Amino acid sequence: MAYTNVDVAVRSARAAERGGLDFVFFPDRVFLHGDLSASPPMFSMEPLLILTAVARETSRIGLVPSVSTSFNEPYALARQLRALDVISHGRAGWNAIPSYEPEAFANYGKPLPQGNEKYERLHEVIQITQALWGSWKREAGQPDPQAGRFADMAHIKPVNLQGRHVAARGPIQIPPSEQGQPVIFMPVASNRGLQPLGMYANGIIAMPMTMEESRTQRQIVHRSAIQAGRTADDIRFVPFIGFGLGASKREALDRRRVLEDRIDLAPRLARLSMMLGARLDPQRAEEPLATAQIDALRPHSAIPRSAEAVALAREGWSPRDVIAHGVLDPNPGLVGTPDEAADLLQKWFEAGVCDGFTIVPDDQQDSIDAFVDEVVPILRRRGLRPADYRGATLRDHLGLPEQLGIDPRLSSST
Amino acid sequence: MAYTNVDVAVRSARAAERGGLDFVFFPDRVFLHGDLSASPPMFSMEPLLILTAVARETSRIGLVPSVSTSFNEPYALARQLRALDVISHGRAGWNAIPSYEPEAFANYGKPLPQGNEKYERLHEVIQITQALWGSWKREAGQPDPQAGRFADMAHIKPVNLQGRHVAARGPIQIPPSEQGQPVIFMPVASNRGLQPLGMYANGIIAMPMTMEESRTQRQIVHRSAIQAGRTADDIRFVPFIGFGLGASKREALDRRRVLEDRIDLAPRLARLSMMLGARLDPQRAEEPLATAQIDALRPHSAIPRSAEAVALAREGWSPRDVIAHGVLDPNPGLVGTPDEAADLLQKWFEAGVCDGFTIVPDDQQDSIDAFVDEVVPILRRRGLRPADYRGATLRDHLGLPEQLGIDPRLSSST
Repeated sequence: MAYTNVDVAVRSARAAERGGLDFVFFPDRVFLHGDLSASPPMFSMEPLLILTAVARETSRIGLVPSVSTSFNEPYALARQLRALDVISHGRAGWNAIPSYEPEAFANYGKPLPQGNEKYERLHEVIQITQALWGSWKREAGQPDPQAGRFADMAHIKPVNLQGRHVAARGPIQIPPSEQGQPVIFMPVASNRGLQPLGMYANGIIAMPMTMEESRTQRQIVHRSAIQAGRTADDIRFVPFIGFGLGASKREALDRRRVLEDRIDLAPRLARLSMMLGARLDPQRAEEPLATAQIDALRPHSAIPRSAEAVALAREGWSPRDVIAHGVLDPNPGLVGTPDEAADLLQKWFEAGVCDGFTIVPDDQQDSIDAFVDEVVPILRRRGLRPADYRGATLRDHLGLPEQLGIDPRLSSST
Repeated sequence: MAYTNVDVAVRSARAAERGGLDFVFFPDRVFLHGDLSASPPMFSMEPLLILTAVARETSRIGLVPSVSTSFNEPYALARQLRALDVISHGRAGWNAIPSYEPEAFANYGKPLPQGNEKYERLHEVIQITQALWGSWKREAGQPDPQAGRFADMAHIKPVNLQGRHVAARGPIQIPPSEQGQPVIFMPVASNRGLQPLGMYANGIIAMPMTMEESRTQRQIVHRSAIQAGRTADDIRFVPFIGFGLGASKREALDRRRVLEDRIDLAPRLARLSMMLGARLDPQRAEEPLATAQIDALRPHSAIPRSAEAVALAREGWSPRDVIAHGVLDPNPGLVGTPDEAADLLQKWFEAGVCDGFTIVPDDQQDSIDAFVDEVVPILRRRGLRPADYRGATLRDHLGLPEQLGIDPRLSSST
């Protein structure tokens, strides 16, 4: 079963490493997720264990698991992430996400958080975790078996932190990795969630649907960082972007359609109908719309990519092919040739709306290979990607300095 | 640094697998443990992550991490252990231990348990974990992509368990492994700790100091199992036993002395002095005791292996060599030739005081190799060990049936 098969994760990570990509990212859900009557569960296996396997079978690429801040004790979290960081020789990240799903809280026998509890706990968990990471300093030194000296305990000290939700004494029992401590990623947030982004995140895995939205989100994140006493340059904003590749537009669409044919067309056609502001005849899903119908199209103002769907319909693509362009995907993207894919990435990047991308492969095992083998060489020729990894650690890949403990700039701002 | 280097764990597990040993066992402490000024921390790295790496780089040997029942939520525990079991294709165990160390509770910001809380929580954690493991039944079937059918949800059901300390709704999000669920190990316990052994354990990792103690402990464990509605045959009793090997007794002692020379002799000589009931002159630690002194030796009644130490001194071994025989070790064992090691194991096994052993290698990286290459062939020639693994899973190795969920025999006894 592919979804429990670590070989699939390893193969995909090795392909990404071959292309010099900065990191692999593993989302997570802590409950049985998805419609199991028809398809495998989503995010079923445990990201920390999968990425431990991946760490041993790769040598350069970064490893970023999602781990919820809502259930785990900071000591357990700090220790497992530090172990992953040490096992991978400084390639670990942590996508720190507060849970919100009632099913997740039910699995942990906990009530849903009220008011500000969700972010209050997130602040405590991240601060105590980082403090534990910093509780074993580099100055403790390296073991010296000749002198019978292992470490200088003057630089390995308890943290003695007590929050309202969690607490820990420390120190941690594992020394720092080659990069100090894991890189903290967070998803985009709003309102109460913005302050923690500004305080802790070095990477934002975002889901803007358009370039304008990406620009706005990135600016908001930068402002939050500056308000927290950090700088815009502390944060890498890397939105999701999806690709379905083929030697021609037609081949890419057909490849995508094979994948889509596994699932029922009707609900997707109903959704496209809303996006186009037009009634679509299921019997004529393979035919371009009639001229009168095209003239009457009105993109839905609240459904992302509706304008793109209308434009595609006006170009003469059938409803079925408009869907195959990926306009129903929960992220921006492109179904087409490698050159078109590179063009899209270059356009976003040069417009300054992001610092990189989180590539979403389509639902085929070889899709990251296609991106690596066909798109990455174009990006390299255009000078948009380096020829190889610039360093050994995830912090090296992202151009981030070593960090060990809580960022000292925060104390002046809170 | 060897103690954070997963390669060491992998190499050791591969050597053990080469010898057909049933499982590798990883103890754990959830705090910085040991005197770091002089030696590396003990049980520093995270057992679940280490064993994930080992799982990927071995193919037959069982993998048994210690994980505390005092801090982890059952859903998190059930999921990580199930992931290890699936990644290893049915080779996982779980040494379920309640924590007692104040440093551990401080790291989790929790007060020390009062009264029966320690075992009350252990009961709840193990029962809910096993129920979660059983929440996805084999009858849910295998995915059938042709039929567009993934699993029969009639056999994947919530558990809805609410304890006083922990709770979970379920179901778990990962299907069963090749062996159903991980094998539960527990350390020997007394009083309130005996009931859980009888109810849940399939393996007991014990620390008796003598054959008689081993026999007694094993009988007590068997009685507990029978009281819980299970049978003596449900439990494998596998005491620790240590070896220091050499081509001759003298070579084995000298090899051990090189290891011991790293640490100060004085406190060990003081302890031996108590065991022998004799004042020992540090200046004469290398000389056999005088006849008058030997006549006056009285083994300490409360310090294990005192009688053995007295017997060795009477044979004419110097105090330094008596210590090199391992009489200060926290487990029984033998420093000598492979034949002597095999004799000791055969004696214990044929006396029916245990069902196998947990081999403690000495503090050299090649020591498990020595056991595998020199002692295992002797055991095989004597018909005490099979020529190869009898099956694919840890349950196969231990002769245990598949289990999925809580043992149904328990309901009638509680």
